[in-house]
Amino acid sequence: MLEALLNTLDRDARQQETWGTVASYIPELAAVDPAQFAISVCTVDGQEYHAGDYQVPFSIQSVSKVFTLALALGRLGDGLWDRVGREPSGRAFNSIVQLEVEEGIPRNPFINAGAIVTTDAVLGRQAPRDTLGEILSFLREAAGDTNIHINRHVARSEQKTGDRNYSLAYFLKSCGNLSNDCDRVLGTYFHHCAIEMTTVQLARAARFLCGGFSHQRLIGIERVRSINALMMTCGHYDGSGDFAYRVGFPGKSGVGGGIMAVVPNVASIAVWSPGLDRYGNSLQGTAALARLSRETGWSVFA
Amino acid sequence: MLEALLNTLDRDARQQETWGTVASYIPELAAVDPAQFAISVCTVDGQEYHAGDYQVPFSIQSVSKVFTLALALGRLGDGLWDRVGREPSGRAFNSIVQLEVEEGIPRNPFINAGAIVTTDAVLGRQAPRDTLGEILSFLREAAGDTNIHINRHVARSEQKTGDRNYSLAYFLKSCGNLSNDCDRVLGTYFHHCAIEMTTVQLARAARFLCGGFSHQRLIGIERVRSINALMMTCGHYDGSGDFAYRVGFPGKSGVGGGIMAVVPNVASIAVWSPGLDRYGNSLQGTAALARLSRETGWSVFA
Amino acid sequence: MLEALLNTLDRDARQQETWGTVASYIPELAAVDPAQFAISVCTVDGQEYHAGDYQVPFSIQSVSKVFTLALALGRLGDGLWDRVGREPSGRAFNSIVQLEVEEGIPRNPFINAGAIVTTDAVLGRQAPRDTLGEILSFLREAAGDTNIHINRHVARSEQKTGDRNYSLAYFLKSCGNLSNDCDRVLGTYFHHCAIEMTTVQLARAARFLCGGFSHQRLIGIERVRSINALMMTCGHYDGSGDFAYRVGFPGKSGVGGGIMAVVPNVASIAVWSPGLDRYGNSLQGTAALARLSRETGWSVFA
Amino acid sequence: MLEALLNTLDRDARQQETWGTVASYIPELAAVDPAQFAISVCTVDGQEYHAGDYQVPFSIQSVSKVFTLALALGRLGDGLWDRVGREPSGRAFNSIVQLEVEEGIPRNPFINAGAIVTTDAVLGRQAPRDTLGEILSFLREAAGDTNIHINRHVARSEQKTGDRNYSLAYFLKSCGNLSNDCDRVLGTYFHHCAIEMTTVQLARAARFLCGGFSHQRLIGIERVRSINALMMTCGHYDGSGDFAYRVGFPGKSGVGGGIMAVVPNVASIAVWSPGLDRYGNSLQGTAALARLSRETGWSVFA
Repeated sequence: MLEALLNTLDRDARQQETWGTVASYIPELAAVDPAQFAISVCTVDGQEYHAGDYQVPFSIQSVSKVFTLALALGRLGDGLWDRVGREPSGRAFNSIVQLEVEEGIPRNPFINAGAIVTTDAVLGRQAPRDTLGEILSFLREAAGDTNIHINRHVARSEQKTGDRNYSLAYFLKSCGNLSNDCDRVLGTYFHHCAIEMTTVQLARAARFLCGGFSHQRLIGIERVRSINALMMTCGHYDGSGDFAYRVGFPGKSGVGGGIMAVVPNVASIAVWSPGLDRYGNSLQGTAALARLSRETGWSVFA
Repeated sequence: MLEALLNTLDRDARQQETWGTVASYIPELAAVDPAQFAISVCTVDGQEYHAGDYQVPFSIQSVSKVFTLALALGRLGDGLWDRVGREPSGRAFNSIVQLEVEEGIPRNPFINAGAIVTTDAVLGRQAPRDTLGEILSFLREAAGDTNIHINRHVARSEQKTGDRNYSLAYFLKSCGNLSNDCDRVLGTYFHHCAIEMTTVQLARAARFLCGGFSHQRLIGIERVRSINALMMTCGHYDGSGDFAYRVGFPGKSGVGGGIMAVVPNVASIAVWSPGLDRYGNSLQGTAALARLSRETGWSVFA
Repeated sequence: MLEALLNTLDRDARQQETWGTVASYIPELAAVDPAQFAISVCTVDGQEYHAGDYQVPFSIQSVSKVFTLALALGRLGDGLWDRVGREPSGRAFNSIVQLEVEEGIPRNPFINAGAIVTTDAVLGRQAPRDTLGEILSFLREAAGDTNIHINRHVARSEQKTGDRNYSLAYFLKSCGNLSNDCDRVLGTYFHHCAIEMTTVQLARAARFLCGGFSHQRLIGIERVRSINALMMTCGHYDGSGDFAYRVGFPGKSGVGGGIMAVVPNVASIAVWSPGLDRYGNSLQGTAALARLSRETGWSVFA
Repeated sequence: MLEALLNTLDRDARQQETWGTVASYIPELAAVDPAQFAISVCTVDGQEYHAGDYQVPFSIQSVSKVFTLALALGRLGDGLWDRVGREPSGRAFNSIVQLEVEEGIPRNPFINAGAIVTTDAVLGRQAPRDTLGEILSFLREAAGDTNIHINRHVARSEQKTGDRNYSLAYFLKSCGNLSNDCDRVLGTYFHHCAIEMTTVQLARAARFLCGGFSHQRLIGIERVRSINALMMTCGHYDGSGDFAYRVGFPGKSGVGGGIMAVVPNVASIAVWSPGLDRYGNSLQGTAALARLSRETGWSVFA
């Protein structure tokens, strides 16, 4: 039944009037064909279901912030919360207004400023190369797949057009909320955002946040709950409330069109469609998750 | 076991160093003894558990916004979302800044401005008296208890000190987002905020949002999910992210110290302790829910 | 020569491509023909010059705030500055954002919120009728003309559409910065904004701010300087910097299209043309003053 | 008489209870003894008057922005105003909030973001060394004194602690409002802010903005008026309204404690005292100018 449903979602996505708009700030993302869709689901009983372009790797972008957060919490524990908040921001993903008002403490780890701080926390005194190795290892172990890599062209393009992120980083630095220098932190940040995965890999990688996969104990259950709570309230920038309303389980989107989602104790999910809505979240990806939620009753809200 | 746990929560609350600060903007709330605590839980198998001052009625204040929202959705359906958003605000409950920036569309139905709009929607062309009757009927039916009333002294005091809410209402009016005049809307608003209930009554009333009580079909399951999603992302003002993080199920707080919460398909909960934290949410009430969540594993997040 | 110049300004105004847009929020202002222009100049040697529709009375609107400020300073002296600031606002005339950020202290006496506070200060414990009589007396004495009146239709229309001003007033009240109730203050405010004058009357009335008219000692020279400084930095809402840049002497505009201006020790000026620019200042009025300044070298800036 | 007055101002400054607080963000400024005061006045009849520490060079800091603006206007003419506004900001000198709201167009050329844009405009395609040479040449010619230099220790310290300015520059860059790269612009910016002058030199340099010195025709009279208008409305950050109110002629302050001021057609002035008020303007310097204005009647406002 789930297999049939995923195929329906795939067919539906391809019959919509609009795919949304692909991110255009770097050539590598701008060149992606918007007319693509993929979905993968791993259920706690060990089954896997896929539909659409599930073998096409895409740039996971901000989805990587979830893994960085997991590592930062592993390193600093609750001390991380002295440097970054846990509240929805009520603003765009790259807004600097809130940073000034709240004196350099980003609202949450999923807006750009917050992810820059968690990247700094994971870096510590390590070399960026080692930190990136650590992030990749974590992802590969979570996904059970060594074939996960960083696209260095994408990372370089991000760096070239990353003025707004540099502005955020220097602001954080001026408030004393970065221990490494801005180039070092952003170099690492741009690289982990440039990781490429298929929905198959991403759905598998998300199992550690599901709570029901017995062999997926990369982090403790308390931390799983924490990260899922953050994805629920802050995972989709200023469209987080809408995602919770329409989909009803935790997820994290990226500007590459991917969304990683978790139905606690039931399934882990990855969906991808590169066209975005006005908040920067995948248009058809979100629509598919909304329908999946309705059809399965997987909403955590009843 | 649940009974023992509630008793522990009650004992713990009474042994904390601080009760927080009671709301002081009206004499009726300022006079409440902070050293009180109550908790009630209704489980879907029909059991009820109570501890502490569960027979003491308190002013439910903003918790009433959930019921008004349910009625407004019943009346306008999704048309309501043209007049009020579904996103966390990132600001204090009574902020007017966002209203100016977003031209009179409140961010969500649980900040004051949003609740004023939903009250206007429920009013329609009715007399305030009839609308209040309708709200009370809904609550009494949900709670299965006719002994639920409005404290008119509290309503009058709210009105006397309600300048900030008048400012919000006139702003909404100037943007064309109120169909009734400000006095009429706020009169109704102040009265439904002045409803008094015990935790027993409130936990029972919350069953219609739980999804698992077979005889509690006041609204459809889709709407239940919607309201729970809104409580999760917006139910605690600018402390909503923190509540999701610490407690992990949907809830709505009031400045009288009450919190109504829902564990979908498992239980409905009411907790009350009048001392507040800096966001205006019950200090010991939130702490008790956090511990309850940890001990029971009732978090929706795994 | 000045006479010829004013005639040129009048002719120029009538040959421009656009008159701007008349204020449309009340029928009385919306019905005004935009194709009108008048200018009057009183020089300190006692001469007067007029051109255009200088015998047509118009609604002085916010220009009245200067006279209210003069009276408020007369009553409270520098104590007024505890309740209202002296800084440009960087925002629209009716913005409420700044009030929230600065906790009920308006940035200056010429934005709406600030003028509501100065009106409250002039009111004190008087009846609104007496206060309005006082404002009219001051104006009539300054102008040397008893034929200056309030248009009560305009005042009533302002009141009917004054929701945004009510929002500001209630906000001020909630911060403790109004001693009278909102209706009383706004009733007075709407009425003094509804005073009607010709440019002849307004230019004469402005002589008390000029400093060079020997018989115009309504207020001391220190206070004259203060008010002129405020008109220079704050007299044209968020177009004040531009007015200083283009015109170079102090002035105060109103949404009825009037501008009162002062060339210290040289002349007082009134100009009127009802079409407005995007900041709410008279389009052709400002253009005429800019040209007058260039031709006469009356800029205070060299 | 002016000589006696300056001596009185000097004596008064030294008898005040407080000198204010010196800027502490770089060691070179933090080490300055706050108990210093100097004032110099050049009158259009060719006289000069000095009192206090007028032979001590100080870091002119933001006062240099006036000279950069003069050069930028010379290069781009009114085209500059497409890239920077002419309105008071209503915010602190280093605020980034406005930049986000107004999409990379700084409010005026005297806040940091605006001065970074004018520096970029002066740079054009020149080498920073050539641009700095041009700025110094302009200043030396204006002052009639070749002994004016950049303190490279100060420039280097500014660079080291300049994270907030880097944040502003990268933000401007991300909005397309810088044609040079950030390092190049800020390198130039930090160096021209690190110019050192005595009040004698600064008062003489300001003569070109006075309008009455026959041999000081570095820029046309229209441009003189423009720059003076900008100094009046925006010259003291978020204390500009207060400066206009208390002093009444155009001026520009720097965080080194210097203020350059102009009484059009009468005199040019420089004052220096390193202790600052809460807006970052010289505390005793402003007080001295306020008293000078009162005693001489030099206010432009009557």
